[in-house]
Amino acid sequence: MQAVLSYLAKNQARFLEDLCAYVRFPSVSAQPQHSGDLHACAEWLVRHCKSIGLEARLCPTGGHPVVIAKTPPAPAAAGKRPHFLVYGHYDVQPPEPFDLWTSPPFEPRVEGRSLFGRGTTDNKGQNLAHLIAVEAYLKTNTPLPCDITFVIEGEEEVGSKSLGEFLLANKAELACDAVVISDTGMPSKKHPALTYALRGIAAFEVILHGPARDLHSGMFGGTVDNPAMALCQLLGQLRDKKGRVAIPGFYDDVKPLATYERKQFARLPYKESEYKKLMGVRELFGEQGYTAIEQRSARPTLEINGLTSGYQGEGSKTIVPSWARAKITTRLVPGQNPAKIIKLVCQHLKKICPPSVRIEVKSGHGAEPYLVSPTSPHAQAALRALKSAFGCEPVIIREGGSIPIVNSFKKVLKADALMLGLALPDDNAHSPNEKFDLDCFEKGQLMSAQLWQELVK
Amino acid sequence: MQAVLSYLAKNQARFLEDLCAYVRFPSVSAQPQHSGDLHACAEWLVRHCKSIGLEARLCPTGGHPVVIAKTPPAPAAAGKRPHFLVYGHYDVQPPEPFDLWTSPPFEPRVEGRSLFGRGTTDNKGQNLAHLIAVEAYLKTNTPLPCDITFVIEGEEEVGSKSLGEFLLANKAELACDAVVISDTGMPSKKHPALTYALRGIAAFEVILHGPARDLHSGMFGGTVDNPAMALCQLLGQLRDKKGRVAIPGFYDDVKPLATYERKQFARLPYKESEYKKLMGVRELFGEQGYTAIEQRSARPTLEINGLTSGYQGEGSKTIVPSWARAKITTRLVPGQNPAKIIKLVCQHLKKICPPSVRIEVKSGHGAEPYLVSPTSPHAQAALRALKSAFGCEPVIIREGGSIPIVNSFKKVLKADALMLGLALPDDNAHSPNEKFDLDCFEKGQLMSAQLWQELVK
Repeated sequence: MQAVLSYLAKNQARFLEDLCAYVRFPSVSAQPQHSGDLHACAEWLVRHCKSIGLEARLCPTGGHPVVIAKTPPAPAAAGKRPHFLVYGHYDVQPPEPFDLWTSPPFEPRVEGRSLFGRGTTDNKGQNLAHLIAVEAYLKTNTPLPCDITFVIEGEEEVGSKSLGEFLLANKAELACDAVVISDTGMPSKKHPALTYALRGIAAFEVILHGPARDLHSGMFGGTVDNPAMALCQLLGQLRDKKGRVAIPGFYDDVKPLATYERKQFARLPYKESEYKKLMGVRELFGEQGYTAIEQRSARPTLEINGLTSGYQGEGSKTIVPSWARAKITTRLVPGQNPAKIIKLVCQHLKKICPPSVRIEVKSGHGAEPYLVSPTSPHAQAALRALKSAFGCEPVIIREGGSIPIVNSFKKVLKADALMLGLALPDDNAHSPNEKFDLDCFEKGQLMSAQLWQELVK
Repeated sequence: MQAVLSYLAKNQARFLEDLCAYVRFPSVSAQPQHSGDLHACAEWLVRHCKSIGLEARLCPTGGHPVVIAKTPPAPAAAGKRPHFLVYGHYDVQPPEPFDLWTSPPFEPRVEGRSLFGRGTTDNKGQNLAHLIAVEAYLKTNTPLPCDITFVIEGEEEVGSKSLGEFLLANKAELACDAVVISDTGMPSKKHPALTYALRGIAAFEVILHGPARDLHSGMFGGTVDNPAMALCQLLGQLRDKKGRVAIPGFYDDVKPLATYERKQFARLPYKESEYKKLMGVRELFGEQGYTAIEQRSARPTLEINGLTSGYQGEGSKTIVPSWARAKITTRLVPGQNPAKIIKLVCQHLKKICPPSVRIEVKSGHGAEPYLVSPTSPHAQAALRALKSAFGCEPVIIREGGSIPIVNSFKKVLKADALMLGLALPDDNAHSPNEKFDLDCFEKGQLMSAQLWQELVK
């Protein structure tokens, strides 16, 4: 192991260059104009994986390609070894709004111990840390105690549709003991974390259609419903004053938090003043009866992600807009089912929509919530690797985000996910000025290098 | 008068050519790239006015020029005569979206009795009808019974700022007995109309500020208010189920409709099925207790003109948006004051806004509602001219739109406006495929020719 560790220590400058090269691809999966960039990014990954000694290939799919990279076959003498997958994604969130970025999102910039750029923390930096750990083994000819297959996809930010199909088609090749994923967070550099639960998601769009075209509000206003007002009145009914989602049946299947979980959460680092500062708000607002940590990780929500209607330019335009649209996502917790929730929400919206507008509801992607035991042998091994790399006691946490594909790993490969996130709370994932902490990058590489040893103990 | 009438009858083909020449100028005041076209159009007008015998000049302003054209001084023997202004505007609305036009907006095209083109009805055709009537007097040496000054501006579609200043600076020259304006509508060719009231307007923007940046809805959602949801809940409270604006005091100053007005309106041509078709809606929605004609012309409204928040592109983006904005205008009716209404709305919004978001309200432009007696001697004269030109009984109407400059005429010149609109409901003012009806053009000329005789009776 000494060779591995010193290889890691010696090559940090080059690892950073590799990460910058990776971040420069504007691999925005939600925006069709970037499909060429996604392909180029996947090809770069394949070349990079080959250069560090992996057997890599680009796998075309119905959407963006999947990159598969495997450690070379073990010498026959080694016999059958455990096989682990490392999952990551090379696609990123849209960078908009551009004007809020201090430096261009796809021109990585180092400031202190932070690397700024879209995708630095979510997920290119975290993903690359694992590749680097394996590179250190391969380049120093240190024998790995297991087989490792990297599965790096290009559709995580838009629902992982192609990877789901890919898993089904490549079940045998991908059969494994567990899936290692660094695509979650840690409360602080002193609290490296194993994530044992994720929220699920259900996405949809609501469009209210009014007049056939934008109407002159002077000539027609007063005789026809305004779709923007109708939308406000419709959506305003979806949340009550206690911060609860006001859709009948929404909470029916929610598995209540166990007492030991609430106790664990109460021990996590949290300062309301710092948390408010992190988000830039004067007041918190959430479901009554739960702490902020519980609200953000273990309770379901309904969020309006975007509103669009009528005139949005300078000054004013006196119209009754022809239509109004909202993009909405619900975050779901263990017990809830996205398909059921989408049905529930659609039915409710249609029921309460007034006849003066025509409602159209488009359901988008869904992902089931995820829950795994934090006390399994694999989980214990992961906690030891975290402790050794970060030099302090790790914590177990639930995370509020979703990684839809973990459910497919469970269903198709029967493999649990070991989620060892390297993102800090202020990394601005999905926001302007996304960054990745270079200490987390380095310690993540160490953690990954240790992990393979711990997992086979 | 026979000479005037036969001059009009003989020269329709040439009048149409003049109108086409006028329409060919893309005099779009809202778009800076057209300022040269506005200037060229004003210069064309000056030349045209001179060619028909008026004393015309181009008056530079801080914005687009004003054209002033006066009938030649009366012979000294005539003594002091009444003086009327004819107001019009040579600027037009933006033609966008171009793809919805059947033929190019600035290449006038005749089809049946319609002339298609941007500005044909609003306001070049209506405006030119008055110039033609005076031309007929001057070219046939028929003595006019009054002095007439044409005031034709280039900023009506963007708020008439320069004309307001021009009126103040040229008060003495423009002192008059009344201002004749053809820039409104008539219910049908069988219902020539005198408009005796206009709605006013008050514009503002509401912005709710939440977190300092867009937040990952998985990592933070549940602990912080969503400004888009807060905006929906806020704005949703501004209109009740009966279609009334739910702001305390909003209706306090509304002058109720007189019984004779409601009787008049009930006689106006109106078919619900046709009106719905015109707007492209399945159902009407408006303030209970009023007919559609009353709702659209004589009752105040509050309309959301635009909504903006968060992600608006393809697919979904799982964020809690940092802010949400609505553009709002209220249409006001006689009795209401825009400044007072803006204050009322702002205060109410601030009062009901929850502390979990920060509210910012920006007040925009305002215009007072307008009301003039439909039974004054001038109004009676106008009704007689309408009846004689159109050959049927005229109606008196209120119009739902605003012509802010009428308030300036009243304040600065102490002159009432006689609004004799020639636009039909399907003329598509402000919309693609704007047209002007050539019967209205011809009868408008007749009406204008008669009007000067009737006004001095």
